[in-house]
Amino acid sequence: MSSPVYPTSGDLPAQSQHQSHGLAATHAPRIAIEAITPSLDQGRFAPKAIVDEAVVVKATIFADGHDMLAAALCWHDDEGQQQRVPMRQVKPLGLDVWEGHFTPQRVGRHGFIIEAWWDVYATYHHELLKKHQAGVPIELELEEGRRLIERAAERSAEVLNASLAAILEQFRLAQQEADLVALLLSSETVKLMQEADNRPHLTRSDVLYPLDVERLKARFASWYELFPRSETDDPNRHGTFKDVHRRLPLIRDMGFDVLYFPPIHPVGRAHRKGPNNTLIAGPSDPGSPYAIGSEEGGHEAIHPELGTREDFRDLVRVAEDHGLEIALDFAIQCSPDHPWLKEHPGWFSWRPDGSIRYAENPPKKYQDIVNVDFYAEEAIPSLWLELRNVVQGWVDEGVKIFRVDNPHTKPLPFWEWLIADIRQRDPDVIFLAEAFTRPAMMLRLGKLGFTQSYTYFTWRHTKAELTEYFTQLNESPLRDGYRPNFFVNTPDINPYFLQSSGRAGFLIRAALATMGSGLWGMYSGFELCEGAPVPGKEEYLDSEKYQLRLRDYSAPGNIIYEIAQLNRIRRENPALHSHLGLTFHAVHNDRLLLFAKRTSLNDEAILIAVNLDPFEPQEGAFELPMALFELPDEAALHVEDLMSGRQWTWHGKWQAMRLDPAVMPFAIWRLRPVH
Amino acid sequence: MSSPVYPTSGDLPAQSQHQSHGLAATHAPRIAIEAITPSLDQGRFAPKAIVDEAVVVKATIFADGHDMLAAALCWHDDEGQQQRVPMRQVKPLGLDVWEGHFTPQRVGRHGFIIEAWWDVYATYHHELLKKHQAGVPIELELEEGRRLIERAAERSAEVLNASLAAILEQFRLAQQEADLVALLLSSETVKLMQEADNRPHLTRSDVLYPLDVERLKARFASWYELFPRSETDDPNRHGTFKDVHRRLPLIRDMGFDVLYFPPIHPVGRAHRKGPNNTLIAGPSDPGSPYAIGSEEGGHEAIHPELGTREDFRDLVRVAEDHGLEIALDFAIQCSPDHPWLKEHPGWFSWRPDGSIRYAENPPKKYQDIVNVDFYAEEAIPSLWLELRNVVQGWVDEGVKIFRVDNPHTKPLPFWEWLIADIRQRDPDVIFLAEAFTRPAMMLRLGKLGFTQSYTYFTWRHTKAELTEYFTQLNESPLRDGYRPNFFVNTPDINPYFLQSSGRAGFLIRAALATMGSGLWGMYSGFELCEGAPVPGKEEYLDSEKYQLRLRDYSAPGNIIYEIAQLNRIRRENPALHSHLGLTFHAVHNDRLLLFAKRTSLNDEAILIAVNLDPFEPQEGAFELPMALFELPDEAALHVEDLMSGRQWTWHGKWQAMRLDPAVMPFAIWRLRPVH
Repeated sequence: MSSPVYPTSGDLPAQSQHQSHGLAATHAPRIAIEAITPSLDQGRFAPKAIVDEAVVVKATIFADGHDMLAAALCWHDDEGQQQRVPMRQVKPLGLDVWEGHFTPQRVGRHGFIIEAWWDVYATYHHELLKKHQAGVPIELELEEGRRLIERAAERSAEVLNASLAAILEQFRLAQQEADLVALLLSSETVKLMQEADNRPHLTRSDVLYPLDVERLKARFASWYELFPRSETDDPNRHGTFKDVHRRLPLIRDMGFDVLYFPPIHPVGRAHRKGPNNTLIAGPSDPGSPYAIGSEEGGHEAIHPELGTREDFRDLVRVAEDHGLEIALDFAIQCSPDHPWLKEHPGWFSWRPDGSIRYAENPPKKYQDIVNVDFYAEEAIPSLWLELRNVVQGWVDEGVKIFRVDNPHTKPLPFWEWLIADIRQRDPDVIFLAEAFTRPAMMLRLGKLGFTQSYTYFTWRHTKAELTEYFTQLNESPLRDGYRPNFFVNTPDINPYFLQSSGRAGFLIRAALATMGSGLWGMYSGFELCEGAPVPGKEEYLDSEKYQLRLRDYSAPGNIIYEIAQLNRIRRENPALHSHLGLTFHAVHNDRLLLFAKRTSLNDEAILIAVNLDPFEPQEGAFELPMALFELPDEAALHVEDLMSGRQWTWHGKWQAMRLDPAVMPFAIWRLRPVH
Repeated sequence: MSSPVYPTSGDLPAQSQHQSHGLAATHAPRIAIEAITPSLDQGRFAPKAIVDEAVVVKATIFADGHDMLAAALCWHDDEGQQQRVPMRQVKPLGLDVWEGHFTPQRVGRHGFIIEAWWDVYATYHHELLKKHQAGVPIELELEEGRRLIERAAERSAEVLNASLAAILEQFRLAQQEADLVALLLSSETVKLMQEADNRPHLTRSDVLYPLDVERLKARFASWYELFPRSETDDPNRHGTFKDVHRRLPLIRDMGFDVLYFPPIHPVGRAHRKGPNNTLIAGPSDPGSPYAIGSEEGGHEAIHPELGTREDFRDLVRVAEDHGLEIALDFAIQCSPDHPWLKEHPGWFSWRPDGSIRYAENPPKKYQDIVNVDFYAEEAIPSLWLELRNVVQGWVDEGVKIFRVDNPHTKPLPFWEWLIADIRQRDPDVIFLAEAFTRPAMMLRLGKLGFTQSYTYFTWRHTKAELTEYFTQLNESPLRDGYRPNFFVNTPDINPYFLQSSGRAGFLIRAALATMGSGLWGMYSGFELCEGAPVPGKEEYLDSEKYQLRLRDYSAPGNIIYEIAQLNRIRRENPALHSHLGLTFHAVHNDRLLLFAKRTSLNDEAILIAVNLDPFEPQEGAFELPMALFELPDEAALHVEDLMSGRQWTWHGKWQAMRLDPAVMPFAIWRLRPVH
């Protein structure tokens, strides 16, 4: 990241004029600039933004007395190109909040500072006008105005000097007080005085506030997860990259744009797990793809049974032709057969008996996986560099999206460095943090640079839980540092709710995920309403992590059509391209959830109603979000049902709804004021 | 303020071991230390604390993985004396919040940092215990434990080395696995291993967090304001300091401990204001004491009609004997006759006609007052130093409390410097900010060092307004940076409410002020229920600012007894020594306000009920704060009515009250659980 020094150009800060005096306080900043947003930990971390979308910067700016201030927002892009835009005080004025905005046009690390200074001429202008209107004598004020212009002319050169001199000449020639007042108050004079402003008491925000500008897919994407090895028509034949090709049209037609594979590397043999996580694998069991590495290679290699490197490149290209971007898994762990154990034994923490500690939660043991030791003496910095090279290697193959496995068990400075390092060369690269852990760590990973994050969404079901969670995500600091990707299921999580909810439950969760966030994800099988668990556990029976799973994607009862509709509605409505801009609205039934999504860019809102009960129809009176449109309670709204295409008009704020899970447990309405 | 460097003593941070490597990230802090409280703007300003009271420091501390961490709070006093105390994780553990505390024993600028590191032996201890209890083989773990102790012994010297060697010897001799486990888990071994800890991955909070420790009067004081010149028995004779002596017993008996005088300096003659702010003063009119300075002297001088410097010193001494501390006004403004105008014309901003700008709000003019220009070329730094010398001069006379007039119209860096400069020599000095302005400025003045502040209290009347305001004052950031002094009236503010409320209204406001904050203030006349206004304005008729006011302090209908009771109750109950620790509780009547005050130091709470309606009795069911005592709804509480002394027991959470303003519009109950 570049940290440019903002030039003072002609504007020497007033305070520096006094730096020859001994008393530091007399040249300390006179103006307070506080509560700058967007910011994370006062500039320590970079809030998230999207290219070609306006960044609105706010700050509380004030100083002693009643004179008027001016402020500017100075921002720079990743190449250090600087621009300065004015900030304006926003209402209510008593809160001293100022606002400015800019629209980054490049992806990468940006930054901004805020400047504020004494607006001498605006203060003068305000007082002259007030006294003129009050009819009090203003002879002195007129002379003071003349002197202000005179001094401005003295410090200006060339064209500006000449223009101000012309004003002074008009002043000299004017006969009537009214003419003098008009001259001093004219917009031309104001403009020239702004140009000639020497910005007294110029004060700058204490630090440079960084900003991470990413491509739209960082905040709006629909992920589909599949195991390439399951893409086979024969349970005894390992699926291949080539097999994946025939799935691409269906996945694209469902509306997904990211296709994510669990690790595609060689799978270890030692302690390989059998079906349903059994300790002994049969000779044809494929093992968990998370047990990475065998004599055939490690994190840089491709599992030979999936195909060749050229097959992979082909798949990346063909997927792209289908509008699908391939996302890979980055899981920093090794099977005991990983080449690193022999090549770099110093990267691991060896026990007294010559073994390496494997993960365990007594009496549970995860013997097919060992972890590197980031702070082992020989691991610094070679392990760190090797891991970076692994990621860079896949970036070089055209992969720009990584789902990172368990980042919270790897050092925080490692991620901050790795992500910055990769994005410095290719700022389009996106990292999704697969951390299911404590709230502070979840947010910290986002602050460190993870583009998106897994969430607690899977465990939020009731109206109260969903309201609290969606609201938190819309508030500081999560709003600025954490982008939620709502996965409805994963190979690791077969949610209890879906184990017994039937088809309606899958529709409920799909509606909540697709409408709640700009980012959602689905692991294959969800569209078939698969939910058979290991009894009593939140895990899939016959988990695909340990065996191939063949599926019939035309099975009756699937929700492929509904998912395609939801993704289409998302694409067509910018308000759904983010988890932000979400507000809850009253509905008199605890099983019914009602929320709206809105962007400030157009005059419409999406209203989403979900029956959280997968079994019974629910009904209730509900409140239309008239306030979002600044409309009175009795106004009318044009409505389009985005699932059915039907249109009508609602008159008045209170309406009634009934949602039958046997038909459709949710409704999505696009609202527009009736003009 | 001293900014000590905390010694690393034997504990070289782990990260520094790798600084020879090129990759900075590998020696960046591994542990996150976030959300440190108390803090203001991430250490830029000093939160407020009181000497001999515990400071509870919290932080969110976490790192990658599941190993255990340890943390310490390192603090220093104003002389740089350092101490280190352990921090502990507090529940719920999932939030990663740690807490430590210390009790400053000196007044002055303190500071703290937080340290966290990898607690290797605690992690080992936890795992060994878990495996031992699970009955799995632990041969390897025992050997690992032995090696941990061996390495600790190697890096330790003398006694510690010998003690650890003794443990190793016991280990060598032990026959049974159970003995080895017991040895490794013993509290003696844990203690020694803590002493020998090399604190791997030691991480420190990014900055030193400052803390302003003040004497108790900074947060708990009762102010009484009078104009010494009115202390006369003859309206034609200017009162004197000597006259004030006879008032001291009454003021003390009412329970006040600060006696505050408006400016006591010579009053200007030019443009002197007459009674009721008229433009022409008669020859015997005293003028506003805020028009400071005449040929008899300026801010350092005493108005000759008040007495001599020796008279002032006498009064300070005698007042102290009565338990009253004198507070002076610091008003940085000049009458046109102030000596500075002649001696330091460069400290003012002169207009083209040779006049100085006076304050005005067209068509209103305040011609008896002109202001200095802090940033005039000749004012830097001589004006700043002179103003500091003025304050220091009064400090040298024994005055340790200053009420500062309109600080928000003087530069912020001036206050930050002046207050720090004065308090560096005498940290007992207290500054009260008389700013009635916008919220951000109000708070900023507190952050800059003002001990106490005037507030919006005077304009908060309804249950909703009072609830919102008291709650804000109890929350971050106001909680840490702003101490409210609730003045019920001032010479400038004759609240509309009191103009028509009758005696009950004065009791209502006195109860709210005395119970709402540890700091409250009263301008004389309030105890006599004076409220006659300039019609339609929030000003007193015949304002004492422009004329002498003689009062009969034994007039019928006065509330001197009730004020004395309120101040007694405040003194006797530590929960009332602060505006903090306040919680609201339900009462089913919008005219009744119910709040509790509690400290964590004892097993009692003060419950205050106020009828906000000065005219009609109000009644309603209300909720006892059982939760404050962690008691069930059906518990019993012992009650003492602190105004009447009556005692009884309330059974169950819901009770009923009736408050008749004709009798007493408030009630104050001390609650204690029945044991």
